[in-house]
Amino acid sequence: MSVQKVQVEQKVLNENQRIAAELRERFRHSGTLVLNLISSPGSGKTTLLERTLASLPQELGVAVLTGDIQTENDARRLSKFGFPAKQITTGGTCHLDARMIERAISDWDLDKIDLLFIENVGNLVCPSSYDLGEAAKIVVLSVTEGSDKPLKYPSIFFKSELLVLNKVDLLPYVPFSVDEAMANAQKTHPGMEIILTSCTNEQGLDEWMRWLKQRMAVAKGAVVAEV
Amino acid sequence: MSVQKVQVEQKVLNENQRIAAELRERFRHSGTLVLNLISSPGSGKTTLLERTLASLPQELGVAVLTGDIQTENDARRLSKFGFPAKQITTGGTCHLDARMIERAISDWDLDKIDLLFIENVGNLVCPSSYDLGEAAKIVVLSVTEGSDKPLKYPSIFFKSELLVLNKVDLLPYVPFSVDEAMANAQKTHPGMEIILTSCTNEQGLDEWMRWLKQRMAVAKGAVVAEV
Repeated sequence: MSVQKVQVEQKVLNENQRIAAELRERFRHSGTLVLNLISSPGSGKTTLLERTLASLPQELGVAVLTGDIQTENDARRLSKFGFPAKQITTGGTCHLDARMIERAISDWDLDKIDLLFIENVGNLVCPSSYDLGEAAKIVVLSVTEGSDKPLKYPSIFFKSELLVLNKVDLLPYVPFSVDEAMANAQKTHPGMEIILTSCTNEQGLDEWMRWLKQRMAVAKGAVVAEV
Repeated sequence: MSVQKVQVEQKVLNENQRIAAELRERFRHSGTLVLNLISSPGSGKTTLLERTLASLPQELGVAVLTGDIQTENDARRLSKFGFPAKQITTGGTCHLDARMIERAISDWDLDKIDLLFIENVGNLVCPSSYDLGEAAKIVVLSVTEGSDKPLKYPSIFFKSELLVLNKVDLLPYVPFSVDEAMANAQKTHPGMEIILTSCTNEQGLDEWMRWLKQRMAVAKGAVVAEV
């Protein structure tokens, strides 16, 4: 029973990997920077994206895919900023997969998209196993969640290039040690980049925007270098 | 591919259901109240359990099983209160299952356990599909997570008898509407019981302890009635 389950899971992951590799190649060709945002429910991913979309120039080609078990609330929240935003409702599945992304972008012209945010289903476990063809995974952790989380959910911290430590405005009211969280993140993923943010008092949002712009320049540079 | 995956998942769930039914029967016979606590990472489950264990009389037969992907931190935290506490490390799996519970309790005498807390893996999605033979599921939601969560993760709110709305001491600092959260919980699960708690200012802990005692009396009563 268990062997059969493992074999089927391995098949599913291999198939996902194949589609993700195709997607990655397409994104590279179109010079689209794709970022896969992963966190627990309620870490503030959607609010961070709202702030980000609000401050990006309208002439930039930006798009958002947002995954959820059931509702379409997030796409509604994110479609107010003039950029295309699509909800992917997984109907119970605890993560997005590459096939869902492939379907969702099928009627988009990637050449017109410089930056694609994928907001994954709120879950620190399942999304870490599914490559979506992204350039980087970003893990968002709220300071209300506890500084031990990088040790308890090592896979997603290991696979994410950047840790956004969010809701730092709440630090005075919660028993959270930033030093400990950063040390735990570095223990799980040596060299991990970390940005401290708050969408309430705007701390760190400049640094986050600089990170984004720098990564977009790299994605575009790759295309230019090839031509 | 997808059909094969669904078939295997169904087999796994059926097998889990069979073991859970056996466990439930054993718990009923021994008069053990088993509660399955489910939440996102960082909602405060472990701290709530620490407070609960600290205030339960030592002569009561209490035990704790705590699930985690990787670390044994939680069992260490929970074993300080003089009651047996065991960690179940799932090694990547996003939920506990009935077989894990069966193995973990194999060397315990259930007749000596009045109350067994199962702290599930931090995840609002996967644990909702796996019956552990518990008398009730309890979902813990922190007010930092957003009042839309009962709509976004309906399965776990529908299946839980009680919603513990935790960290209410943070209400002045977060954009969270208790009324809206309660309405969303009732929309997903009409008649759901809700207790507002804070382990920082102790609000609601009395009510939580009363709920526990009342449920334990019911579990014992079931045995008495049968004898």
